[in-house]
Amino acid sequence: MRKLIVFNHVSLDGCFVDASSSMQWAYTGSDDPEFETFTAENASGDSVLVFGRVTYQLMASYWPTPAALKQNPTVAAGMNRTPKVVFSRILTHATWNNTLLLHGNPVEEIRKLKSEPGPDLCILGSGTIVAQLAPARLINEFQFVLDPIALGAGRSLFGGIPAPLNFTLTQSRAFSNGKVFLRYTPA
Amino acid sequence: MRKLIVFNHVSLDGCFVDASSSMQWAYTGSDDPEFETFTAENASGDSVLVFGRVTYQLMASYWPTPAALKQNPTVAAGMNRTPKVVFSRILTHATWNNTLLLHGNPVEEIRKLKSEPGPDLCILGSGTIVAQLAPARLINEFQFVLDPIALGAGRSLFGGIPAPLNFTLTQSRAFSNGKVFLRYTPA
Repeated sequence: MRKLIVFNHVSLDGCFVDASSSMQWAYTGSDDPEFETFTAENASGDSVLVFGRVTYQLMASYWPTPAALKQNPTVAAGMNRTPKVVFSRILTHATWNNTLLLHGNPVEEIRKLKSEPGPDLCILGSGTIVAQLAPARLINEFQFVLDPIALGAGRSLFGGIPAPLNFTLTQSRAFSNGKVFLRYTPA
Repeated sequence: MRKLIVFNHVSLDGCFVDASSSMQWAYTGSDDPEFETFTAENASGDSVLVFGRVTYQLMASYWPTPAALKQNPTVAAGMNRTPKVVFSRILTHATWNNTLLLHGNPVEEIRKLKSEPGPDLCILGSGTIVAQLAPARLINEFQFVLDPIALGAGRSLFGGIPAPLNFTLTQSRAFSNGKVFLRYTPA
């Protein structure tokens, strides 16, 4: 059965995006070679990326642009090539390369996708999707990079979950740029 | 000069209290002897405890009671004996043993307290106070126990800060109960 993982940067106050829906704050400290090597290796599978509409549109507005191809050629090429799934009730088509647009209920669609053969699935950002799939116990693993910043405002990955969720810590690794990688499975 | 530190449990979604203002979720996993030894040693200074009104009243309603003295005799005795400071514009007196009630602006009062001789100061809970003192750069160290739980709702320690705050990670230690102790200084 395909695994579904979540990968996200999180601030000390629990946000994955700031009040302007930006993830820019998470890109500081990228000059730590040990951290760079770790994240490159960690991301080097061939997962299918899974998004909610908001995160999808944010990423689709950046990665295919000449600016992204110039600033981050390797990541941009990977993001553009990788198969993507986006959940939305309102989008009528998805223009970013290699995207499957799904209109159905994310819990049912993911249950179906997980039962089919194929590579693992990885959610980036997409708090609304995480908050629906986590209580349904469809997420096999949560990977967080805890950034040494407090944003003061923003969105939590777990806003709207009907009850607290407990996790089992399976890995923690601190980097000299102050980021801490944390890996959890549902308890 | 006296140091001011913050010590708090934090959920994965950045809350120090849940939607019912409870910290009860943070007390799970206390059967890990290594974690218990660590927290007992870490708390064994003779700091003055600093509170906002809400956290103060929460703690004052528990620690002096027969239930607390029975369930947690050592911690209760320590909490009741330790000198405490509470900030409030509305309280007229503070009934919990050994409490100094301050009506002034927390930034000015803490600046004054820090310039006087005496033991270090330690804030527990008290998000409103942290969110005022942190941007004023009056907090020398932040100690967090990151608990393996997502609450879904609650209060952040940094709600209302006027701009993001960056930190330097100085220690991280994971425990087998899934809690991660994190120590930061302001960057």
